[in-house]
Amino acid sequence: MSLRNRHVVVRTIDRADGPTIDALAPVGTATVHEAIGRRGYLGPEIRAIQQGTKIAGSAVTVSCHPGDNLMIHAAVEVCQPGDVLVVTTTAPSTHGMFGDLLASSLMARGVRGLVIDAGVRDSADLRDMGFPVWSRWVSCEGTVKASPGSVNIPVVVNGQLVEPGDVICADDDGVVAVPRAEAAWGLAQSEGRLAKEEGTRGKLQAGELGLDMYGLRETLNALGVEWVDRLSDLR
Amino acid sequence: MSLRNRHVVVRTIDRADGPTIDALAPVGTATVHEAIGRRGYLGPEIRAIQQGTKIAGSAVTVSCHPGDNLMIHAAVEVCQPGDVLVVTTTAPSTHGMFGDLLASSLMARGVRGLVIDAGVRDSADLRDMGFPVWSRWVSCEGTVKASPGSVNIPVVVNGQLVEPGDVICADDDGVVAVPRAEAAWGLAQSEGRLAKEEGTRGKLQAGELGLDMYGLRETLNALGVEWVDRLSDLR
Amino acid sequence: MSLRNRHVVVRTIDRADGPTIDALAPVGTATVHEAIGRRGYLGPEIRAIQQGTKIAGSAVTVSCHPGDNLMIHAAVEVCQPGDVLVVTTTAPSTHGMFGDLLASSLMARGVRGLVIDAGVRDSADLRDMGFPVWSRWVSCEGTVKASPGSVNIPVVVNGQLVEPGDVICADDDGVVAVPRAEAAWGLAQSEGRLAKEEGTRGKLQAGELGLDMYGLRETLNALGVEWVDRLSDLR
Amino acid sequence: MSLRNRHVVVRTIDRADGPTIDALAPVGTATVHEAIGRRGYLGPEIRAIQQGTKIAGSAVTVSCHPGDNLMIHAAVEVCQPGDVLVVTTTAPSTHGMFGDLLASSLMARGVRGLVIDAGVRDSADLRDMGFPVWSRWVSCEGTVKASPGSVNIPVVVNGQLVEPGDVICADDDGVVAVPRAEAAWGLAQSEGRLAKEEGTRGKLQAGELGLDMYGLRETLNALGVEWVDRLSDLR
Amino acid sequence: MSLRNRHVVVRTIDRADGPTIDALAPVGTATVHEAIGRRGYLGPEIRAIQQGTKIAGSAVTVSCHPGDNLMIHAAVEVCQPGDVLVVTTTAPSTHGMFGDLLASSLMARGVRGLVIDAGVRDSADLRDMGFPVWSRWVSCEGTVKASPGSVNIPVVVNGQLVEPGDVICADDDGVVAVPRAEAAWGLAQSEGRLAKEEGTRGKLQAGELGLDMYGLRETLNALGVEWVDRLSDLR
Amino acid sequence: MSLRNRHVVVRTIDRADGPTIDALAPVGTATVHEAIGRRGYLGPEIRAIQQGTKIAGSAVTVSCHPGDNLMIHAAVEVCQPGDVLVVTTTAPSTHGMFGDLLASSLMARGVRGLVIDAGVRDSADLRDMGFPVWSRWVSCEGTVKASPGSVNIPVVVNGQLVEPGDVICADDDGVVAVPRAEAAWGLAQSEGRLAKEEGTRGKLQAGELGLDMYGLRETLNALGVEWVDRLSDLR
Repeated sequence: MSLRNRHVVVRTIDRADGPTIDALAPVGTATVHEAIGRRGYLGPEIRAIQQGTKIAGSAVTVSCHPGDNLMIHAAVEVCQPGDVLVVTTTAPSTHGMFGDLLASSLMARGVRGLVIDAGVRDSADLRDMGFPVWSRWVSCEGTVKASPGSVNIPVVVNGQLVEPGDVICADDDGVVAVPRAEAAWGLAQSEGRLAKEEGTRGKLQAGELGLDMYGLRETLNALGVEWVDRLSDLR
Repeated sequence: MSLRNRHVVVRTIDRADGPTIDALAPVGTATVHEAIGRRGYLGPEIRAIQQGTKIAGSAVTVSCHPGDNLMIHAAVEVCQPGDVLVVTTTAPSTHGMFGDLLASSLMARGVRGLVIDAGVRDSADLRDMGFPVWSRWVSCEGTVKASPGSVNIPVVVNGQLVEPGDVICADDDGVVAVPRAEAAWGLAQSEGRLAKEEGTRGKLQAGELGLDMYGLRETLNALGVEWVDRLSDLR
Repeated sequence: MSLRNRHVVVRTIDRADGPTIDALAPVGTATVHEAIGRRGYLGPEIRAIQQGTKIAGSAVTVSCHPGDNLMIHAAVEVCQPGDVLVVTTTAPSTHGMFGDLLASSLMARGVRGLVIDAGVRDSADLRDMGFPVWSRWVSCEGTVKASPGSVNIPVVVNGQLVEPGDVICADDDGVVAVPRAEAAWGLAQSEGRLAKEEGTRGKLQAGELGLDMYGLRETLNALGVEWVDRLSDLR
Repeated sequence: MSLRNRHVVVRTIDRADGPTIDALAPVGTATVHEAIGRRGYLGPEIRAIQQGTKIAGSAVTVSCHPGDNLMIHAAVEVCQPGDVLVVTTTAPSTHGMFGDLLASSLMARGVRGLVIDAGVRDSADLRDMGFPVWSRWVSCEGTVKASPGSVNIPVVVNGQLVEPGDVICADDDGVVAVPRAEAAWGLAQSEGRLAKEEGTRGKLQAGELGLDMYGLRETLNALGVEWVDRLSDLR
Repeated sequence: MSLRNRHVVVRTIDRADGPTIDALAPVGTATVHEAIGRRGYLGPEIRAIQQGTKIAGSAVTVSCHPGDNLMIHAAVEVCQPGDVLVVTTTAPSTHGMFGDLLASSLMARGVRGLVIDAGVRDSADLRDMGFPVWSRWVSCEGTVKASPGSVNIPVVVNGQLVEPGDVICADDDGVVAVPRAEAAWGLAQSEGRLAKEEGTRGKLQAGELGLDMYGLRETLNALGVEWVDRLSDLR
Repeated sequence: MSLRNRHVVVRTIDRADGPTIDALAPVGTATVHEAIGRRGYLGPEIRAIQQGTKIAGSAVTVSCHPGDNLMIHAAVEVCQPGDVLVVTTTAPSTHGMFGDLLASSLMARGVRGLVIDAGVRDSADLRDMGFPVWSRWVSCEGTVKASPGSVNIPVVVNGQLVEPGDVICADDDGVVAVPRAEAAWGLAQSEGRLAKEEGTRGKLQAGELGLDMYGLRETLNALGVEWVDRLSDLR
C-alpha cells in the first residue's frame, strides 16, 4: 500500500476472534512475546502509568503530527468495544496528547486502554477512572489541533510495526503486539509455554537447578567456560 | 538586572495572594498550564516521587553549583509558610542534593514542598514524612558545601524560567510555574476551563463525539483528510 | 588478576560477617554511602522495581553477553543464603534477562535480591513473590543462552566497581556496594552518623537553622555571598 | 506475511529502475523527504561517518541479534551492484558490528554503502576506503556469530519501516527510504520541487521575504499574531 | 512582562555597540564564559555543524511550536546586519526547521549565523554557503507552518535565558550569550583574561607547573590530599 | 586496597615496556580490543575530538569531583613522557574541565593525549596544537578548584576499569585500555590478527565470501536459518 502524501481515516478493520483476545490478556506480555518467537515488544520506554493491570484488545492505530492530537479525536469514532488505541507521532514528541476527557470518550465506547509513544496528562485522574495507559511520557504540555494524520494505517511504535487489528497485550512489563493472523496460534503457543513453566517452577522452588534441567552444563563446557574454586587460582 | 559574577541571597520577595494560591492547588497542573496559554510547564523529566499529591505555593528559588547543596541551607532562612523551594544547578547534576534533614528543616518553617532539577535522597523517608518532592533524579550520591550560588534570583528549571514568588503548582503530571502577577487571572481562567470541561465530560461519557462537539470534522476536511472504508480501497 | 580471554565460574568467595551485613540493611543507602566516604553508589539509573524494601547481602557477581542470560543460570549454583546477585553485561543491554523462574530458583537458595544493569521481566510477579529487584530496565525482551561469560569476577555496574563478596545495600534510593573488608568499619561509621543525625533532626524540627548548626554563615561569607533585602537593590 | 519464529534469507527482491535510483542520489535527502510527503526519514540519530557524500541504492535488509553480525555475512551473498545494506537489531545495540573486512567484501560486489542502527568499527579505514556509512554509533565493541536472524524481510530502522528494494537515499542530513513503487513518482516530485526552489532561492538572495512570497502574513494574522514596535509596549 | 496567551513579533530591539560585538568574536566562547562569571553557556548539546568558525552578533530570538517554522519566516523581516538568529521551541523538537532557503534569506540581510535548539537540514549546503549554524540536531524531518509563536521575546535555549539583543558568541565549543548591558564590561574582562593567559601559557610551555603558579599545593594540603610514592604503601 | 575516605596522589606507577607501547599505537583499537578477548573498550560515548589520530601510552589516572579540575593540576606533576592522562569524575559531569593551558602543560612533559569522561573546552585550539583528546563532551562550562580527589588509583571510565599504567590505545573508534601486564601478549595477539586479516582482506576483495571462508553456512543451517527465493514463497 502506498499513501504517498494522502491522509486517511480507515473505518473498517479486521479484528481477531474475541475469546482469543480475552484469553491472551491474563497470559502476560513476557510469555506472549516469548511464545510468538521473541517478537512484538514495544520496548521498555513505553511504560504503564498504573500498576497491576493486564489487558488485551484490538489495535486501532493513529498517526499524529507531534504536539497535535487532532487525529486522536478522529479515531474515537471508529473504535469498538474491546479495542485498544495505539497512538504514535511522525517525529518524537513529549507532549501530553491525551487526558481524562478523551479517556471518558473512549470508555463510553468500550475501549480497553491506550498505548501512546508520546505523553499523557491527567495521570492521577486516569488512574482513578481505571482507564489503563502505557506511554513514553507523563506530561501536561498542551497540544493543538491543526495538522492532518491518519487512522488505522500501519504504524511504528518505538521501533515495532503495529498493524490495525493486531492484538495488543499490555501489563507491568510493557506492551506486546501480536499479529492479528497469529492470535490463535500465539495463544496456543503461550498456553503450552505456561503449562511447561508451571512444572519448571515447582522444580526450581524445590531447589533443582536450571543448569541441570536445561542441560546448560554442556553448553558452558562447549563454550570453554571453566570452573575454579578461587579467583586466586588463576593468577 | 545583572549580577555579573556576584552571588546573593535575596531576603524579601513578593508573593501572590494566599487564597489565590490555595485555590490553585486542587485545579491540577494540566488545567492551569492550558488556562494560562500553554505555558509554565517544567517538563516531564521533573517527576513526583510520591503519588496523588497536589500542592501550590510561592517559589523561593535557589541556584547551586552541581554536587554542592550549600545554597539550599542558605535558602531555608528566607522561606515562609506556604513557600515551595525551587532548586536548580549551574550545570547538570545527578547528585542527591536534598534529604530528610533538610526536609525536617523546611517542614518546621511551613514550606509545602520541593522542586529540584537534580537528585534527592532518603526518598522513602520523604514519602513517610509527607514532604512532597518533584525531582529529576532519586540518588544517594553525596554532595559538598564548598561553592557559592544565589537565592531568590530568576532561575531556569529544565528550560522554564521561574521567578521568585511565582506560584508553583505541582501534582502527578509534574510542575507548572504561574507568573506571580498572573495568579488571579490564571485562577479565573482555570475555573472557567474546569466549568466548561465538566459539561464536556458529561456529554463524552454519554457517547457524544469530540469530533462533533468541537467542530473537528470541518478541520479534517479542510486539511484534506479522507475517510475510506478499507485500507485496501486505496491501493 | 588477568583473565585474558578466559571465562570462569568461581565457586568460593569470601563474605563479610553475617551480623554485620544484617545490621547494614536497615541503615539506608544514603547514610552508608556518606559514611564510607561518599563511595560505592551504583547510580540513579539502577532503580528499585518495588517500594519500601531495604536489604543487605553479599555480592555474587555475573558478567553476561548482552541479551544472553546463560551465566545467570551458572551463578545460581554458587549462591548461598544471604547473597545478592549482581549482574552486568559486556555492552549495554535493555533485554529482560531475569524473570519469575530465576527468582524462584534464587529464593529456594536463600538469595535476598537481584541487582542488574539490564532489564527484568515478570515485574508484577516479582513484586508479588516478594523478591526485591534493582534494575536499569523493565522489559520483556527475550534472551538467548549462547555466549560465555563469568561468575564471581570483579565487575563494573553503571560505573562502579563491585567485587565478589562486597556488601550490597539497597533501598528506594538505589544500591551501594561496601567493600567487604570495610563492612565492619562502614557499619560503625554509619551508626555514628545515624546517632549524630538523630540529634540534628530534633533541632531542625524545632526550627534551628542548618546555617547556624553547621557554621555555614562563615563559609558563605568567605565565598563572597552577599545578603540583600531586595533583588532590585542590586540594579 | 508472517514469519512466526522462522528465520530466512530471501535471495531475490524487486528493485526500482536503475536510472531512477541514480537520478535520486544528487537530489539530497531533505528534498526527497519533502517531495514524497514528509515521509521515510530514518531520524537524526543515524548519522554519516563521512562528510559530503550523497548516494542512492536499493535496500538489502538485515535483522540481527544485538551484538551478533552473523546475518550480515549471510546478506553479502544476495547483494548486487547498486545495493545499499540496511542493518538493524532486534533490540538496541551499541556494538561495532561492521568493519573494514565486511566493507571490502561489499565493495567487491558493487554495494554502495551501509546504513546500520547499531555501531561500526574501523571508521578511519572506512573513510579511507571510500565506503560510505550511516550508523548510530562508532564503536570497536566486538561481536559474536551465534544467533539467527533474517535477510530481506521488512525491517524497522529507528522507527521507520524499510522494505527490501526500497530506494535508500543518504547524505549529510541522514537517510531517507523511498518505497520502491514510488521511486519514479518520488523523483518527479523531487525534480519539480528543485525547479521551484531554484526560483525561490534567487528571490530570497535578492532580499525578497518568504513572508511575502508564501503569503504567510495572512497566516500570522489569522492565528492572532500581533506586531508591536517594542516589547515594553505590551506591559 | 506578561504575554499571557498573546503572540507577538517585536520589531525593534536594543543592540550592543557594533565594535564591541566585533571584538568579542575572536575571543572564543570559553574565555568569554569565564570572564563574565561562568555564565551564559548554552550547553554542549548545541553544537556547531561546521569546524573552525567564530562569530559574534546580536540575538534576534524566536519561539516556535515544535515542528513548525512559521515564526522563523516572521523573524527574518526584523533582522539587521550583524544579527544572529536564536530559535527555540515550546517543547522538544528534532525537526529540521531550517535549511538552505532560509539561510539564503538571512544572508541577504547580513545575518551572521543561526543558533537553534532543534534541527537543521541541508547541512552540507549550509557549510558550502558559509552560513554558520549551531544546532541540537541535523535532521531532514519536515515542518509545517500552522501554529503561532513570538519573535524577540526572552527565550530559554537549553536551560539558558537569552534576551533579544544579547551578544551571541559562538565557536567550536558552542554558544555563549552575553547580556547586552554587559557587553563592554564582558569584553574588557575577556581581554584582561587573555592577556593573563598569554603569560601563563608561556610558563607552562616552559615546564612550570600550574600546581606552583596557582598555589594549588596549599589547597590540596588544606583538603587533606596525601602524596604517597606507591599505592601499595597504603595497604 | 582500600582508600576508605582518603585522597591520594600516587607518584610512582609501573609502566609497560616502551617499544611495546609504541608498537600498539598503529594497530588500531578495534584490532587490539578483539585480540585481547573483546575487552577494554571505553565505549562509544568517549569520542575523538580530532580525526585520523592514533596513539598509545601509559595511563596516569585522575578521579575528580564533578565540575572541579583541581586534581588534573595535581596529576601533571607525576606524568612522564609517553603517558596518557585518563580523567574521570565521581558523578556525571558535562563541564569543560580541560583546555589549552593544561594541554600546554602536558605537552611540555611529553604527554601523548587525554581521555576524559567529562568535557573539554578550547577544542579548536587543542586540534591546532596537535594535542589529541577523547572526551564525552565538548563544553566551555567552567570549573572550580575546591574539592579533593585522587591521582593514580584505579578508576572506572564509562563502565571500564582502568588501572594506572595500563596501555591506553586510542583512535577514531575510541579508546581501549590494555592491562599493563598483558601489553606484550596483547601486541603479539594483535599482530597475529593483523597478519591473518591481511590474507582475508585480499580474498574478500577478490569476491570470495565470508560465508565460505569462515564456514558460516554450517552455523546458519544449525541455527535453522532457511534460504528462500522470494518472501512471498513463505505466505
